[in-house]
Amino acid sequence: MSAVSSGGVATARGFRAAGISAGIKATKKPDLALIVSDVPATAAAMFTLNRVQAAPVLVSKEHLAASGGIVRAVVVNSGCANACTGDAGMSDARAMAAQTARLVGCAPEQVLVASTGVIGVNLPMDKLNAGIPQAFAALASSQGPQAAQAIMTTDPFPKEACATITIGGTTVTIGGMAKGSGMIGPNMAPSATMLAFVTTDAAIAQPLLHRALAEVTEETFNAITVDGDTSTNDTVMLLANGASGVTIGDADYGPFRQALRAVCLELALGIVRGGEGATKLVTVTVSGAASVADARTTAKAIATSLLVKTAIHGGDPNWGRLLAVAGRAGVVFSPARAKITIGSIVLFEGGRPYDDRAPEAAQYLKATDVSVGVDLGAGPASSTVWTCDLSAEYVKINAEYRT
Amino acid sequence: MSAVSSGGVATARGFRAAGISAGIKATKKPDLALIVSDVPATAAAMFTLNRVQAAPVLVSKEHLAASGGIVRAVVVNSGCANACTGDAGMSDARAMAAQTARLVGCAPEQVLVASTGVIGVNLPMDKLNAGIPQAFAALASSQGPQAAQAIMTTDPFPKEACATITIGGTTVTIGGMAKGSGMIGPNMAPSATMLAFVTTDAAIAQPLLHRALAEVTEETFNAITVDGDTSTNDTVMLLANGASGVTIGDADYGPFRQALRAVCLELALGIVRGGEGATKLVTVTVSGAASVADARTTAKAIATSLLVKTAIHGGDPNWGRLLAVAGRAGVVFSPARAKITIGSIVLFEGGRPYDDRAPEAAQYLKATDVSVGVDLGAGPASSTVWTCDLSAEYVKINAEYRT
Repeated sequence: MSAVSSGGVATARGFRAAGISAGIKATKKPDLALIVSDVPATAAAMFTLNRVQAAPVLVSKEHLAASGGIVRAVVVNSGCANACTGDAGMSDARAMAAQTARLVGCAPEQVLVASTGVIGVNLPMDKLNAGIPQAFAALASSQGPQAAQAIMTTDPFPKEACATITIGGTTVTIGGMAKGSGMIGPNMAPSATMLAFVTTDAAIAQPLLHRALAEVTEETFNAITVDGDTSTNDTVMLLANGASGVTIGDADYGPFRQALRAVCLELALGIVRGGEGATKLVTVTVSGAASVADARTTAKAIATSLLVKTAIHGGDPNWGRLLAVAGRAGVVFSPARAKITIGSIVLFEGGRPYDDRAPEAAQYLKATDVSVGVDLGAGPASSTVWTCDLSAEYVKINAEYRT
Repeated sequence: MSAVSSGGVATARGFRAAGISAGIKATKKPDLALIVSDVPATAAAMFTLNRVQAAPVLVSKEHLAASGGIVRAVVVNSGCANACTGDAGMSDARAMAAQTARLVGCAPEQVLVASTGVIGVNLPMDKLNAGIPQAFAALASSQGPQAAQAIMTTDPFPKEACATITIGGTTVTIGGMAKGSGMIGPNMAPSATMLAFVTTDAAIAQPLLHRALAEVTEETFNAITVDGDTSTNDTVMLLANGASGVTIGDADYGPFRQALRAVCLELALGIVRGGEGATKLVTVTVSGAASVADARTTAKAIATSLLVKTAIHGGDPNWGRLLAVAGRAGVVFSPARAKITIGSIVLFEGGRPYDDRAPEAAQYLKATDVSVGVDLGAGPASSTVWTCDLSAEYVKINAEYRT
């Protein structure tokens, strides 16, 4: 039994959060967030697969290894990615963790670090040194929304999600926050970095926690795309502190995973809705594939195709583009067996087009949330990914000069 | 010795061409082209690797196999791709070839076919039946420019190129025409299909001709991208009729290949310059790679990245995006050894940024032809690809409703 409720990264028992303005952003908007667990929490994390990894990613990996996955706090800044910043960047990321650890009263390796913002610029450590104690002083279980604000870069709105499950009569809470990429503000760097932080008051052994996060990330954060680029800083972290008194074992893994998936999917879809220049959330489902890998490959090719994303932006039920992209995705199928749908309207089936249905499909595409489907007619497997449309606003946002 | 000269698909001796309006396009613009060789010509062709292949692609493959690669004519229409058109589409493509063959006086399998335009609509055969004799009557060695006009869809300008080489005192000519994707006209379907037709009056055995076209296509047409999509109709054809009396053997292969490459590169870069919404031609060179495959993979990832293409559109020397895309390209390198250049300006080297050079790089990016470079510092291999910037105009073109 799981229920989606309001809340965020500090809703689960035993977690506090803060979000303050440390002056890293020229706009003076909030740019420093802190998440602290009252007791040591088991942690799992997923990091960008980019070959170029920012200093906070490298330091968080080191700390997870050194602490055996036992964590007390996460410190996050926006406004500067601390990526491509050399040895100084590594020292700065370590210093952020060390200062947080001193305040929390734990070992530095029990603190994880994340950053998002401009690449190739060093952190203003004087501002972080002053800001971290200020954030620590502001920590409260009520401050999740402030933390969600503080991790934003070009996001048009903050993203929080929460779900509860009842196990043996006790409520277990899973809550989180995320940031993606959204509308650029003046003089800010566009950044496609995805950060997500999720906390739960369940107790769960590290291997099972890691498994849950890996499985759910694949179905949620790894199933969305805005512009197909992978950042140097992408990070998803999950902390479980056991404050509910409930331990998740194999028997309760299913409901726990389901609730975690609900939280992560809501955060992930929030990132797509807030994608740079986005006006529509597009659900792309590929079915009838020979394997899940084929279905996923095809769905991702469709979800990143400029021709598809611009057609949907313009409300054009251009099913030929969907079929053509499926055809170049590198998977085996016979076009004569394929079926193309927009919403529930079949536009191509049995080798022949149904162009008389185009006006109905064009009407359907006026909605904000739309779905397109390709049935490859080649097997039993399917996969769903989510993307947004591509607007002229996206180009405007990303073509503007950084400084 | 090769020299680039003016000319096109009917400049080589023994070739004639025509381009007329058959009324396939609602705009009444030219939409039917014919290329005829006075004597049987050896032919080589490269076709789209898309799983969904248009009827003319399937029929041309059949005809090349049946004729042993000996061809008299090529018939091409724009305004309708004859793709996803089922059995009727196959009959129509065969009928186009058969009618051309009757007029030329050859077997149907000695005629190749190509189409470009809207997907999922059947050819108006009455218009083709009337148009093909009209085009046949207009055939002349002076009509290359008319043929180049007739294959255009959304192209802003026609693309022709020609080169000559002198072998044993005799001039050998290689000339061609191409179409890509450009600015959309009113009520026209945006189409990313690339078609190129090249003719030469050299004699050359089919295996060597095929090798030349395969090698050169890889370095030219396969090294360009506008939006990363592969059409159902992409076709490159090369006809060699021997009318110059010069036979290309192994000894002359080098100069012949070089001249063919010059023609194909000029046509390919014309496609990029005329790309939908394009304002800049961008040369992307990746060097210092462990293998040519690594270099090519990285260069293609950069050339198709929305973040890179929009930054260049905006004149933003955002080297961090170049490095981040290289990092996600799936090739092995150490960011600390990488070097990023915009023009000849080094913006990142030895693990550290040179942001003081950003204004100079921004000034450089105001040019129409710009180059960016990534040296991975991981080996001796390099690769160059060409792309265009991504403008709001691209989105506008592709978001407009088809009908």
